[in-house]
Amino acid sequence: MAIELKVIKIGGNVIDNPAMLDSFLKDFASLEGPKILVHGGGKKATELSHKMGFTPQMVDGRRITTDQDIEMVTMVYAGLINKSIVAKLQNLNTNAIGLSGADGNAILASRRPVKTIDYGWVGDIEKVNATFIKAQIENGLCPVLCAITHDNAGHLLNTNADTIASEVAVAMSDLYDVSLIYCFEKPGVLTEVEDDNSLIRNLNEEFYAELKSKSAIHSGMIPKLDNCYNALKKNVRKVIIGSPDVLKKDYNTFTTLSL
Amino acid sequence: MAIELKVIKIGGNVIDNPAMLDSFLKDFASLEGPKILVHGGGKKATELSHKMGFTPQMVDGRRITTDQDIEMVTMVYAGLINKSIVAKLQNLNTNAIGLSGADGNAILASRRPVKTIDYGWVGDIEKVNATFIKAQIENGLCPVLCAITHDNAGHLLNTNADTIASEVAVAMSDLYDVSLIYCFEKPGVLTEVEDDNSLIRNLNEEFYAELKSKSAIHSGMIPKLDNCYNALKKNVRKVIIGSPDVLKKDYNTFTTLSL
Repeated sequence: MAIELKVIKIGGNVIDNPAMLDSFLKDFASLEGPKILVHGGGKKATELSHKMGFTPQMVDGRRITTDQDIEMVTMVYAGLINKSIVAKLQNLNTNAIGLSGADGNAILASRRPVKTIDYGWVGDIEKVNATFIKAQIENGLCPVLCAITHDNAGHLLNTNADTIASEVAVAMSDLYDVSLIYCFEKPGVLTEVEDDNSLIRNLNEEFYAELKSKSAIHSGMIPKLDNCYNALKKNVRKVIIGSPDVLKKDYNTFTTLSL
Repeated sequence: MAIELKVIKIGGNVIDNPAMLDSFLKDFASLEGPKILVHGGGKKATELSHKMGFTPQMVDGRRITTDQDIEMVTMVYAGLINKSIVAKLQNLNTNAIGLSGADGNAILASRRPVKTIDYGWVGDIEKVNATFIKAQIENGLCPVLCAITHDNAGHLLNTNADTIASEVAVAMSDLYDVSLIYCFEKPGVLTEVEDDNSLIRNLNEEFYAELKSKSAIHSGMIPKLDNCYNALKKNVRKVIIGSPDVLKKDYNTFTTLSL
């Protein structure tokens, strides 16, 4: 039987809240066994862009990544956030190693082709280097991945952190029994976005399709859930969406996805 | 006989000049055998600080690293510069991995005690984790180290890149035959700072002491040279200071240091 590996993704709202982040990192550090952390960006990159005198352009909630933006997100995601998390994990006796997709050629991507919109330096994942990541884990390290990839032509690319978590989980499934856990500011998938009591504890694909057809799923959740089902179809053993308290095994704080 | 390992440091002036950096990286990528790159910061952190509305305070050419400054240098050194170099090296078929001292607990430091001046988040190196760095090299990776360390109490620290190069070279000398090469904007140690023809090809410690006593060494070179002799005394096999062209084996572009 393969060894269990946890791939845990934290979103921007967790990162933007120092108390929530510290509490999450404590729980993360105390998890037994091999684990990978994937983190998003939070508001810092946008805030700093404003301070520097430019305003990131968003289309459908996605950043148009200009030359200025890729510098900014590289600084904030791969620099400030990634290294701050790694330093905190070291203090919690977790031997973390912060990685962008360029490091060790961990995640190769290609710049998104222009159809109607040119997203700029945005990368779609081509290949996750599972061998490299496994070697780090076998050296006793805990990879901490930020949402920056590369194209192997010398360019850094901005890639959605949810997609990174999903694709990393899929690639590692050839080598481990992988659980993929998305932590964000809600206790899971809700039928009423403002009502935590509307938590769906189990969401299979059929039920998901039904809810989607009734517009009962918040639109912001759809790409995340699509990433979840993609992972389940490609041999990720278990996929969960919940609040950071899911790591405390609080059963009111997550949704379990199934096919 | 131990395997040879090259530890090469590039300074800010190389980083600030894109053509010089690209040319250096090509030469670096073509070097055979295990190698480590250590890079400084350049002017970008100071430029960005000004854009963000604060002015870094310098005392004797050293940055007083406030809370704002440590965020800025983490973004620029560990984020932008480090990952840009790693992406370029990947494109040059060098499997680089960018590291701060927090990653894999590579470089443990302690915040500099306050005597007359509080340097803020500045770290003095306590221990280089040679075992970790060796494991990366043995996995076929080329470590690219930035000038950020950590204190294992959750804080990142700003550490002089010349000192990092020297201490990494010393620590790796237990495991490899180490050559330490400092690349900067001059062709080596000069007796006349503006005259490249005043290059000293060989500088032993006695000659260095003599030149220092006559004030014939530019003050900015003294900490760098002290790092060199420190390395030689602690079993680093060879120490060189020169322009990036030293990697092309241009014999007019470097000074060899000896005890």
